[in-house]
Amino acid sequence: MIVLGIDPGLTRCGLGVVEGRGSQILTMIEVGMIRTTVDAPLEMRLLQLETEISQWINRINPDVIAVERVFSQLNVRTAMATGQAAGVALLLAAKAGIPVAMHTPSEVKAAVTGSGRADKKQVALMVQKLLRLDAIPKPVDTTDALALAICHHWRGTGDSKIQSALKEEQARLELRKTRLKKVAHL
Amino acid sequence: MIVLGIDPGLTRCGLGVVEGRGSQILTMIEVGMIRTTVDAPLEMRLLQLETEISQWINRINPDVIAVERVFSQLNVRTAMATGQAAGVALLLAAKAGIPVAMHTPSEVKAAVTGSGRADKKQVALMVQKLLRLDAIPKPVDTTDALALAICHHWRGTGDSKIQSALKEEQARLELRKTRLKKVAHL
Repeated sequence: MIVLGIDPGLTRCGLGVVEGRGSQILTMIEVGMIRTTVDAPLEMRLLQLETEISQWINRINPDVIAVERVFSQLNVRTAMATGQAAGVALLLAAKAGIPVAMHTPSEVKAAVTGSGRADKKQVALMVQKLLRLDAIPKPVDTTDALALAICHHWRGTGDSKIQSALKEEQARLELRKTRLKKVAHL
Repeated sequence: MIVLGIDPGLTRCGLGVVEGRGSQILTMIEVGMIRTTVDAPLEMRLLQLETEISQWINRINPDVIAVERVFSQLNVRTAMATGQAAGVALLLAAKAGIPVAMHTPSEVKAAVTGSGRADKKQVALMVQKLLRLDAIPKPVDTTDALALAICHHWRGTGDSKIQSALKEEQARLELRKTRLKKVAHL
């Protein structure tokens, strides 16, 4: 499964692609950052984001697109800009028919460091370690997009483990019912 | 000039089209509201917004798209959702090559009522009056999109008046320079 993690931002939008083989081993495929100039009109910046994110989606053809779900921001202006950038990413995923997942920053931090309150450096170091990279990718904030993709792989695995456990439980119940019926018919 | 005003929102996105003939008389062309269901996945709601706003743009072919610029929101979650919806509108404008203008709610209120702190009802009443409508359009919050379009017509006029004044001033300066040069060459 290939996950494209998108850490949305208008000025800096991080992208990280992580492939999972089996349930444990994760490999970095690509990492990058889209930057738009503050001087350009807002709609042109969004158009640039759309064009470049499209290129990533077409090139990578991910199975899932994971987007950071942001609740707490320093101010409303930043939240609006992040929302606009996230909107473009989500729209492109919907148009490409690629499933979308959203994870909060604390879910991402907890997934890669074990603590929802880990700092940037700790996240970056764990991303390097988990993906067995020689160095922390640059710029350092691209590691957030990679952490997001890693988080999705692991949360996805967790969910499917829960679901298979539920299925087994369901199967056991069905089997029990059948047995009870048989007993009743004796 | 035809202005499409978009009051962005994820659950309710208001659209109002106002045409200006001459500098004063404004006419409502169309008004409406796009609603997306809260239960649908976020990316599907954005896709629905994109599809429907596209239809409006293609049908109306506006000269300008005016989008509400929101700075103050009750909370970051609302700001994010508004940002996502606004992002879709701005992106579509950029793709269609239609100029975009953004006005804040207080600019819009001031334009139609004379007060930046007017309430919803006052705005609605003034929109009805200014567009010479028999009744206040329903749902009532579509009047915000119409007010936005009206605001753009008037601010646009104001700006072009300022710009033509600046041009005249510039022309006078140029003329003066030429005269001074002539004097110097005598």
